[in-house]
Amino acid sequence: MSNLLARDTDTHGITTLTLNQPERRNSLSMAMLDALSEALTDIAADDVTRVVVIAAAGTVFCAGHDLREIRDQLDSHEFQLALFNRCSEVMQQVVNLPKPVIARVAGVATAAGCQLVASCDLAVAADSARFATPGVNIGLFCSTPMVALSRNLSRKHAMEMLLTGEMISAVRAEQLGLVNRIVDESLLDETVHAMARTIAEKSGHTLKIGKGAFYKQLEMPLAEAYDYTAKVMAENLRADDAREGICAFLDKRKPEWKDR
Amino acid sequence: MSNLLARDTDTHGITTLTLNQPERRNSLSMAMLDALSEALTDIAADDVTRVVVIAAAGTVFCAGHDLREIRDQLDSHEFQLALFNRCSEVMQQVVNLPKPVIARVAGVATAAGCQLVASCDLAVAADSARFATPGVNIGLFCSTPMVALSRNLSRKHAMEMLLTGEMISAVRAEQLGLVNRIVDESLLDETVHAMARTIAEKSGHTLKIGKGAFYKQLEMPLAEAYDYTAKVMAENLRADDAREGICAFLDKRKPEWKDR
Amino acid sequence: MSNLLARDTDTHGITTLTLNQPERRNSLSMAMLDALSEALTDIAADDVTRVVVIAAAGTVFCAGHDLREIRDQLDSHEFQLALFNRCSEVMQQVVNLPKPVIARVAGVATAAGCQLVASCDLAVAADSARFATPGVNIGLFCSTPMVALSRNLSRKHAMEMLLTGEMISAVRAEQLGLVNRIVDESLLDETVHAMARTIAEKSGHTLKIGKGAFYKQLEMPLAEAYDYTAKVMAENLRADDAREGICAFLDKRKPEWKDR
Repeated sequence: MSNLLARDTDTHGITTLTLNQPERRNSLSMAMLDALSEALTDIAADDVTRVVVIAAAGTVFCAGHDLREIRDQLDSHEFQLALFNRCSEVMQQVVNLPKPVIARVAGVATAAGCQLVASCDLAVAADSARFATPGVNIGLFCSTPMVALSRNLSRKHAMEMLLTGEMISAVRAEQLGLVNRIVDESLLDETVHAMARTIAEKSGHTLKIGKGAFYKQLEMPLAEAYDYTAKVMAENLRADDAREGICAFLDKRKPEWKDR
Repeated sequence: MSNLLARDTDTHGITTLTLNQPERRNSLSMAMLDALSEALTDIAADDVTRVVVIAAAGTVFCAGHDLREIRDQLDSHEFQLALFNRCSEVMQQVVNLPKPVIARVAGVATAAGCQLVASCDLAVAADSARFATPGVNIGLFCSTPMVALSRNLSRKHAMEMLLTGEMISAVRAEQLGLVNRIVDESLLDETVHAMARTIAEKSGHTLKIGKGAFYKQLEMPLAEAYDYTAKVMAENLRADDAREGICAFLDKRKPEWKDR
Repeated sequence: MSNLLARDTDTHGITTLTLNQPERRNSLSMAMLDALSEALTDIAADDVTRVVVIAAAGTVFCAGHDLREIRDQLDSHEFQLALFNRCSEVMQQVVNLPKPVIARVAGVATAAGCQLVASCDLAVAADSARFATPGVNIGLFCSTPMVALSRNLSRKHAMEMLLTGEMISAVRAEQLGLVNRIVDESLLDETVHAMARTIAEKSGHTLKIGKGAFYKQLEMPLAEAYDYTAKVMAENLRADDAREGICAFLDKRKPEWKDR
């Protein structure tokens, strides 16, 4: 485990990844991206993690790319492209991870940090959290962040954030659909863990099927999406957990998952 | 007319389909899906219906698939696939019906029942109504329901419903865009019928053109969508009702539709 | 400059286009569309304009197509198709313009007028403004307007406007995402200009890159969108303004844009 990124799994199978470089505003340097990527690869394969929480140490959730690193390699187009590709890969690892991912946001999430929130399946924020895609202020438009942002917010709202670079409040982020819920910071851990535990109680096999199908069908025309998901559901019914779940429900008892 | 599904057409051309198996929570058994499919096929072709309302008898709007039926055929992959395909066909019949469809929701709409609401063009709910996609709780992810749900709600909201399986209130459903309007249950019929009558007063030919084009252009890139709809509008102007409508408007009189 | 359309550029590089035929409800006649198209073509190429505001003289923002013009050529399918294609081109010129466009809406915006608001990158409205796509009332469904509308609003909300033809309030339009912000009409100019000035202070080159990439990536599947935008960002970093912006930020000074 990298010291840039703390990893901790509790008894419920909830693995918390904590961006742990508050003195660098938890920026997504190449090293931090590598640490995230490695952790997500491990988690995808491990038998313990059921739900992932992405959190951050300190008062800034994540400030996006490390501008010093970018400046130090300003003449290496190769490095920059590798960096943005690496970042895009990590965001897609979150989306493609066969386990649900919840962002736990306290403080400020900007640029690729805001993108990370948008890329998670779910997000809970402190009501003091704030969000922005301020790349436009430094001449570097938030073009990769907008991919995730524009798939969470409606167009005019995404455009306002991207073109003005201005900060929005947690209240506004909740209204716009960037986060699911906002709570007083003192209740943040409790709220995130309640949500995570609710999900961790489900069948892991079922969650994997569902999350995977969700993002896949979103990119299909309607008829194709129905063809595909009808097959997914029929296949889902072949799994022990679906059989157990249906029988338990009809018998009015609690299901016992094989893939818990 | 099947006794599973009541059908009634009023003098305004508003046909109400009422799911009529409250003792089975109006579940979408193969028989109910067949009844719905047959009714929608009839309605597509009849000369009387101008607007469809989908309602339900009893205190549950629709509980989704009939789990007993699924359990009884648990080893027939063929049956399950046929069931989910049938259900997907019915949902697409609603979308492709050349007449507007309004969901009238009182009580609880879950799983494929929630999907039915999402599949209608419009939805009005009692403020006591509730919605969920709880398949994940029984090991069978709501994969076909999510097709309709994720085309109504933004991602994080859809994901929250799908991953937690939790019920949302009518107030929340209205905020998230799953229903157009919520009213006190005592005003539900009045509100639905006012909306239906407003629409039933339009030219049926025009409604057919518009509804069909709406879902088609949604799946196109912008330039293609404009090419297509510009042709649709020019074609629309060849119809008697468009000519009558424009002249009536300019003459400040009420139009008399040929295809009323 | 056509007298149908006033054009004025201030010292901040904010060009205001004012629909200037209030006695015709600023309708989008072929002549008005030509004037808009010409102005947008000029603005795309000029060195002065940094942000565009689309406004309107009088108490109606824009009533959509000119129905008299349509009626006068009712038998020319060719004219009608040319008209709707012309209109679609102008809407796409707004989207494709390499400079941000803000709608400044006072009064009523209907049909293609509502589409114009939806097509702008951002929109600010007086709280007395109102919006509708009422084509259905005259037998001519708002099929081209729905392209822009349905890319701003969620499905059921767009469908409600299209099928009922009813007016919605500015408050509702703000809730539904059709406009970014509503203010008292007395504050409308101030609010629009504050927003425009905020954006006009950015690097024009960066805005061009970002706006272009935004609409392009929206139409791509996720993986393709990331491939594309990672390249866009790396390319963006080759520009003087990005280098200056990053260095200025790290040096805690104001950037001096080359392409201001």
